[in-house]
Amino acid sequence: MELEESGIREECGVFGCIASGEWPTQLDVPHVITLGLVGLQHRGQESAGIVTSDGSSDPTFRTHKGMGLVNHVFTEDNLKKLYECNLGIGHTRYATTGNSELQNCQPFVVETLHGKIAVAHNGELVNATRLRKKLLRRGIGLATSSDSEMITQLLAYTPPGEQDDTPDWVARIKNLMKEAPIAYSLLIMHRDVIYAVRDPYGNRPLCIGRLTSVPDINDKEKKSSETEGWVVSSESCSFLSIGARYHREILPGEIVKISQHTVKTLDTIPRPDGSTNAFCIFEYVYFARPDSIFENQMVYTVRYRCGQRLAVEAAVDADVVSTVPESATPAALGYAAKCGLPYVEVLCKNRYVGRTFIQPNMRLRQLGVAKKFGVLSENFKGKRIVLIDDSIVRGNTISPIIKLLKESGAKEVHVRVASPPIRHPCFMGINIPTKEELIANKPEFKYLPEYLGANSVVYLSVEGLVSSVREKMKHGSNTNGVTSYFNNGHCTACLTGTYPVELDW
Amino acid sequence: MELEESGIREECGVFGCIASGEWPTQLDVPHVITLGLVGLQHRGQESAGIVTSDGSSDPTFRTHKGMGLVNHVFTEDNLKKLYECNLGIGHTRYATTGNSELQNCQPFVVETLHGKIAVAHNGELVNATRLRKKLLRRGIGLATSSDSEMITQLLAYTPPGEQDDTPDWVARIKNLMKEAPIAYSLLIMHRDVIYAVRDPYGNRPLCIGRLTSVPDINDKEKKSSETEGWVVSSESCSFLSIGARYHREILPGEIVKISQHTVKTLDTIPRPDGSTNAFCIFEYVYFARPDSIFENQMVYTVRYRCGQRLAVEAAVDADVVSTVPESATPAALGYAAKCGLPYVEVLCKNRYVGRTFIQPNMRLRQLGVAKKFGVLSENFKGKRIVLIDDSIVRGNTISPIIKLLKESGAKEVHVRVASPPIRHPCFMGINIPTKEELIANKPEFKYLPEYLGANSVVYLSVEGLVSSVREKMKHGSNTNGVTSYFNNGHCTACLTGTYPVELDW
Amino acid sequence: MELEESGIREECGVFGCIASGEWPTQLDVPHVITLGLVGLQHRGQESAGIVTSDGSSDPTFRTHKGMGLVNHVFTEDNLKKLYECNLGIGHTRYATTGNSELQNCQPFVVETLHGKIAVAHNGELVNATRLRKKLLRRGIGLATSSDSEMITQLLAYTPPGEQDDTPDWVARIKNLMKEAPIAYSLLIMHRDVIYAVRDPYGNRPLCIGRLTSVPDINDKEKKSSETEGWVVSSESCSFLSIGARYHREILPGEIVKISQHTVKTLDTIPRPDGSTNAFCIFEYVYFARPDSIFENQMVYTVRYRCGQRLAVEAAVDADVVSTVPESATPAALGYAAKCGLPYVEVLCKNRYVGRTFIQPNMRLRQLGVAKKFGVLSENFKGKRIVLIDDSIVRGNTISPIIKLLKESGAKEVHVRVASPPIRHPCFMGINIPTKEELIANKPEFKYLPEYLGANSVVYLSVEGLVSSVREKMKHGSNTNGVTSYFNNGHCTACLTGTYPVELDW
Amino acid sequence: MELEESGIREECGVFGCIASGEWPTQLDVPHVITLGLVGLQHRGQESAGIVTSDGSSDPTFRTHKGMGLVNHVFTEDNLKKLYECNLGIGHTRYATTGNSELQNCQPFVVETLHGKIAVAHNGELVNATRLRKKLLRRGIGLATSSDSEMITQLLAYTPPGEQDDTPDWVARIKNLMKEAPIAYSLLIMHRDVIYAVRDPYGNRPLCIGRLTSVPDINDKEKKSSETEGWVVSSESCSFLSIGARYHREILPGEIVKISQHTVKTLDTIPRPDGSTNAFCIFEYVYFARPDSIFENQMVYTVRYRCGQRLAVEAAVDADVVSTVPESATPAALGYAAKCGLPYVEVLCKNRYVGRTFIQPNMRLRQLGVAKKFGVLSENFKGKRIVLIDDSIVRGNTISPIIKLLKESGAKEVHVRVASPPIRHPCFMGINIPTKEELIANKPEFKYLPEYLGANSVVYLSVEGLVSSVREKMKHGSNTNGVTSYFNNGHCTACLTGTYPVELDW
Repeated sequence: MELEESGIREECGVFGCIASGEWPTQLDVPHVITLGLVGLQHRGQESAGIVTSDGSSDPTFRTHKGMGLVNHVFTEDNLKKLYECNLGIGHTRYATTGNSELQNCQPFVVETLHGKIAVAHNGELVNATRLRKKLLRRGIGLATSSDSEMITQLLAYTPPGEQDDTPDWVARIKNLMKEAPIAYSLLIMHRDVIYAVRDPYGNRPLCIGRLTSVPDINDKEKKSSETEGWVVSSESCSFLSIGARYHREILPGEIVKISQHTVKTLDTIPRPDGSTNAFCIFEYVYFARPDSIFENQMVYTVRYRCGQRLAVEAAVDADVVSTVPESATPAALGYAAKCGLPYVEVLCKNRYVGRTFIQPNMRLRQLGVAKKFGVLSENFKGKRIVLIDDSIVRGNTISPIIKLLKESGAKEVHVRVASPPIRHPCFMGINIPTKEELIANKPEFKYLPEYLGANSVVYLSVEGLVSSVREKMKHGSNTNGVTSYFNNGHCTACLTGTYPVELDW
Repeated sequence: MELEESGIREECGVFGCIASGEWPTQLDVPHVITLGLVGLQHRGQESAGIVTSDGSSDPTFRTHKGMGLVNHVFTEDNLKKLYECNLGIGHTRYATTGNSELQNCQPFVVETLHGKIAVAHNGELVNATRLRKKLLRRGIGLATSSDSEMITQLLAYTPPGEQDDTPDWVARIKNLMKEAPIAYSLLIMHRDVIYAVRDPYGNRPLCIGRLTSVPDINDKEKKSSETEGWVVSSESCSFLSIGARYHREILPGEIVKISQHTVKTLDTIPRPDGSTNAFCIFEYVYFARPDSIFENQMVYTVRYRCGQRLAVEAAVDADVVSTVPESATPAALGYAAKCGLPYVEVLCKNRYVGRTFIQPNMRLRQLGVAKKFGVLSENFKGKRIVLIDDSIVRGNTISPIIKLLKESGAKEVHVRVASPPIRHPCFMGINIPTKEELIANKPEFKYLPEYLGANSVVYLSVEGLVSSVREKMKHGSNTNGVTSYFNNGHCTACLTGTYPVELDW
Repeated sequence: MELEESGIREECGVFGCIASGEWPTQLDVPHVITLGLVGLQHRGQESAGIVTSDGSSDPTFRTHKGMGLVNHVFTEDNLKKLYECNLGIGHTRYATTGNSELQNCQPFVVETLHGKIAVAHNGELVNATRLRKKLLRRGIGLATSSDSEMITQLLAYTPPGEQDDTPDWVARIKNLMKEAPIAYSLLIMHRDVIYAVRDPYGNRPLCIGRLTSVPDINDKEKKSSETEGWVVSSESCSFLSIGARYHREILPGEIVKISQHTVKTLDTIPRPDGSTNAFCIFEYVYFARPDSIFENQMVYTVRYRCGQRLAVEAAVDADVVSTVPESATPAALGYAAKCGLPYVEVLCKNRYVGRTFIQPNMRLRQLGVAKKFGVLSENFKGKRIVLIDDSIVRGNTISPIIKLLKESGAKEVHVRVASPPIRHPCFMGINIPTKEELIANKPEFKYLPEYLGANSVVYLSVEGLVSSVREKMKHGSNTNGVTSYFNNGHCTACLTGTYPVELDW
Repeated sequence: MELEESGIREECGVFGCIASGEWPTQLDVPHVITLGLVGLQHRGQESAGIVTSDGSSDPTFRTHKGMGLVNHVFTEDNLKKLYECNLGIGHTRYATTGNSELQNCQPFVVETLHGKIAVAHNGELVNATRLRKKLLRRGIGLATSSDSEMITQLLAYTPPGEQDDTPDWVARIKNLMKEAPIAYSLLIMHRDVIYAVRDPYGNRPLCIGRLTSVPDINDKEKKSSETEGWVVSSESCSFLSIGARYHREILPGEIVKISQHTVKTLDTIPRPDGSTNAFCIFEYVYFARPDSIFENQMVYTVRYRCGQRLAVEAAVDADVVSTVPESATPAALGYAAKCGLPYVEVLCKNRYVGRTFIQPNMRLRQLGVAKKFGVLSENFKGKRIVLIDDSIVRGNTISPIIKLLKESGAKEVHVRVASPPIRHPCFMGINIPTKEELIANKPEFKYLPEYLGANSVVYLSVEGLVSSVREKMKHGSNTNGVTSYFNNGHCTACLTGTYPVELDW
């Protein structure tokens, strides 16, 4: 199912770029950031913003923000206003906290005693309420309801001893980490530098890419070309379209300083003893683009393995394997390959329907989400279908599709879900429907097949998901010294109710 | 490849609806037409228009037209202006002849001696120049450069003997057919009736659907529910999303009168002796949505058979079969099934890139169309890929994709094209690049693999295409008396240079 | 009162320009036309259009039209599309006949046997219904409900004998005049020429201006500079803002051919014996801009004389003379001067209120039109005001103003109206409220002062108006041979019910 | 001359409204504020904003802001979002400090320890730079470059002793006054109350109006109707259009608390010993709408007196007195009355020209601002004109008008300016052209008549202006105990260079 339908949404994507040289650079920084953000559009479609800097000691920051898709916000005319720069950061957003107004759009820019800073943030602070009170007590009027403004004000604060000196960014960021444990992937722009930070649990993703004069993606044998600049992004999928190559993931707790020619780790803040990493497992299941790389593995491959595992956990006697286009296709192909059944297409997406401005009339309400699809009935008439979905969250979208397939001639429809049921809220940056809305918490969950009109419905187990994610790590085939660091934990709170930190932190 | 990239474009889609009752009807006619047009959006994305009628003897026609996608042109507010009606026709358009202005948008409405008529047209008149001169001599000032205005003026003309009588529509339409042999699928709305007409060669498609109170698609055993109205559409794919069921195709030369309760053939105009049907074969290859039905077969199935045939005609030693998403997927699955190789995905489409308003910068120009895709490199690293495309028209889009795959680790890339090369212009409603732009007419065509950077390139033969289209017809498995009528010809002019009529008609 | 409030509206303005030279000319023709239309904006605020021609024998016509004010329709970007030209015509419009859609916007362009023509029309055909039928019988489908399309189709018709020859425009225009006696001021563009035509009764205005390299307005002694081109306009007020000087009025029935270097009368069509001119007297009273010149006199001066006359016809014992800004100011100054009372301002217009998009709430409905004004109470507190208005049409706007003035301290308010009451419809191009809406036809008219809340109300007599218009003509002080031609008639049909032609013509 | 042309601009208008009752109130508060802002549109045309509150103890604040005119920003749809409220404040703005972005639009809203506050500000802080540094040192990151954000943050600060108590607004506002002496008229909304504050010098205006069920403006004898609510506005001119009646001016240094049923003075902060009021004298000359009341006198009357005074100071032998429409008309009428010459109109404004989006072409650049006017030449041909202007700031707009009049037949043109020359910058909220741009500081000022092409040019003296402003105050005719408070000073800094406070405060 599509993210819009499920009610689950990622909240943000961040993207930064710094050119290897002074303005005017060969690299068109606002362009690169715009296209980088387009590559992160699936992480936030509500608003977008870019702030650029000319990199001088008293820099001019240029800002453009707007409601809507990146492509609508950044036209050629708007980009021209940002041109005189050699670095910048951008943001694309859904609202998790903070309502949907331009005012809440990131990046945030504030003037501090040491000049302007711009901050872009992906994540959500588990202890936001306490922090908010603390800042208000200090006499700071907060203009927005967003966690990110709080982070910005925390970073803006200059300790008395430092006021006439240069700012100590490692100290400020460490202070932020002391105030708030999780969850943030941050880009902080100051003068000619971008600081890139992941929280100590590594809950939200962040990675670095290198811009070279000739793009040669993923080929490490080839002699690398000259570096033209650096990019930093929530997901590596945004690198290919700008001709950048994947450099490396930023580690949990790591503070990286990216300047014109260097990428340097300033410090890596450890977690409390005994706690493990808590990278959001739903990035694999749901949010990330399939060509993105986390923990040295391609998201698509993890989804394919989930499908394979599901075939083992929940085999069924059937004729064909298929899926609801498009996000569950890797799992469906994995399932089909594992159980030896043919993969066929049963639905054909009408890509124009989703954007209809008009209200559904009576006829359409009966059909529900099925109106988005054409049926390829000759492919399944009289057959038993295993229909793979990547998740069933509220359970209101798969039902009309099953009905549609049956009315169009399917003999049986067996639903297999390539992730476990969601039962708990997230406080770290994911918008999940209320507990009451989640199908797994409803009484109907007990007789789900009947409720959905399917012949059978089986979810992947939590253990199955976790082992699909970690399978290759265990075998160490991709290890390069970094993997071992990663391989000690994922956040599965929305599935299990076990949160990485105490919620009343 | 995407239609936008290939330079080949369908020009139009037409859609009509008539409710089984007087206004106010239970059926929301403007809504149904809008959603019908959304289902035909792939046939024309430049402008859209709807005209509705209240069906009285001196009817009020209400019109709304606009540039852009159907969803943008028809908002709730705009639809409200059309509401008081029980029938209407709509149109979605690319410009083949007639430039891109609102003025050229269809349907055209003119007042005639017998009241208003509205006309929606898909197709292009081969003898437009002569006809134009003829109308001007008659003293009619023509306001647009469109063929469709000429058709409208031809239909508006009332012969002297008929001026104080009721209009004889069969005579008028027959007169039109005498003046212009090909190509048109027409909807003509007058008072409370829609006349639906296909030219005698059946070059452009047109079919009828039935709206019932409970949608039960394609299930002919089930007792049909009460009829709520009739729809008529360029393609049957638009029926499902409005809860209509496929009724039948309008035959070449057939004049059908659709009124509140009946669908009646008024006449069927024969072709000249010896000539055969000339349904555009590129509707199968390229334009139509895969779930549409022509000549009693699903377009998807024909494409799948093309892939199978291609596997026979052009086998190659390889590891995996894949495609450039999304239109060649059926052919790729057919190819893979036939030759026994696994089907894998190698590219992941970034659906937001295509709509970027900003100019490509230097970096992107190097990557060309590849910027639209992420690579799923773990799926093909070190492997030999058979890459299926549905057509290679100008040859400028596949090349960077091949390069991208090779740079990302593909060992070999063998291109297989599921249709023959295009070499000739179309004068019947398809926008084809100029002869000089067509790769098949260029010197480079002789060493195409080297030119494209592929290890090999093979097109499907014309014979292969035709037999894939007609395979099942021969076996008669779907025959119901109509098939035999269809099965005597397709227009392959753009592939062979053999046109269905003399061009200097 | 403002035109918008009174319910009386002029329907159109026309403007043409032709540069003295080939493209590229020094003169920017689309610019000149746009500014000319801005000068005619008060004559039509619903839509605007321009068609330009490159003046070749097979010319390219470029068109841009849009809904809204001239300034919104013609941006720099839109004008660029029209640039390659050395002549063009434009139109600004209210709908009298023909509804408010882009389709009805003028100028109309049609292709004829002798190439394209563009037509811009101010006026309305009294015999439209008959003419329409005639054209439909001829087999012409009419796309709009506008009289102007009929005129265009009449002009497009090429008589059989002329089909392979050059078109005879005088014959065609004469034929039009035979078909339709009144009312039209027309601009017809064909190839490199503009034909400017007034109907034989001269009902609507039309005049010619000359563009010179250095503008020296109205100074006839000065040696004239070199001619850069010609302009033709509904009103001379549009000349000053483009640096053109008034040349002369086009006479009733005159057919003028304007080409690059010459302005030539081709013919002047006489009226039937005994009939007089019928220039619309409401152009003086209401529609025209005060700085326009008709029949060799400035509109402002005529209005001033109406005020003077009114002071004689309807003197009253009072302290100050004032007006509702802005259109009745000349009459108020004339009244004040004649009766020797001081002229003061009592209201101050809030120029932003009129454009409010929001609905009036309860409070504002009570205040009515008075919400548009601030009161200058210190100017009239305790005083008796003579309040001059230019017309009272429906009587719903002056009443709240009188109330406002009284509440703000006025001792007495005596309303004096500088034109007679309107009682009859117009069929020649003016939109007048229905007979029932006109206050002069209502029972309340008998006790108008009480109804309006005024201490007294007097209208100017028809005789007073006519003599104010003709006063100077009689004395012949402005005569230059043309005046005598004019000075034999004005259309006063809306005041008297006497129409210049039989209505069932 | 028009404000846009002179380069002098007011920066802001503020407007607040509170209904006498709980939501849902009879009074439509967002509507009233919108129309109030429309009445202040002349004070700021760049952006507009409204914040409403439901008046509860933990209130919901609803905000809408946008770039452009009030009417464009506040459509019915936008207002609906603000509806659930019984009080609110609004702002309309030009940028003096702070650039022109939505982010800088007011009112500003921040959350404080005691809940949200909204602040609307007219004015500019003379000591902004120092204050800014002070706030940054405190660790507050400032998001905008606007003085108003600083005021908001200063007000947001809760002293430690007060943190768990109710906020002491008098103390906070007093603290603000201690930090910043001038210039501000402020509206502060908190919970169910609006605090209205003028700086101790009274530099910017602010007054209160009362909404009654039946509007009966300025009539103090009449028994007042029931109070429906209170409004507070920069100018009283905005009261009439919403049916409110003028209540009183807020005094310099006064802190007024406006709640549902009461208007209460909390405190009045005195100026330092010896200093006088400093109400901006240019509000009278230029900014305010003529129907506004300051210091108990109508602005129109002051301007009329300036004209009278000018007739005494600078008499000239002439035939007629006139003006450039529209702002100098009161002065022209005063001049004409005093010297006994007739007042005539010589120019007729084309109200559509000003908004043309297209660039002036060559022709228009020669005509300059004269393109905005039509000439009423019959009114002045052969005559000597005294042309009254309200100010000549840069001297680039009057010159082409003089030329135009002379070319159209004026025998002489004597310019009389109803205010003294501007020579110095303003730091209190007025945007004045740079010193170099001011005509009074240029060498050409010595031979101004020749430079402008006039026969003579005379400005009003500073003494003349001041005495025109204070004339009636002296006579005490309007005194009601308040006048004496006002009548001890006006800020004439831009004319004299004498500022009300030290600039390095």
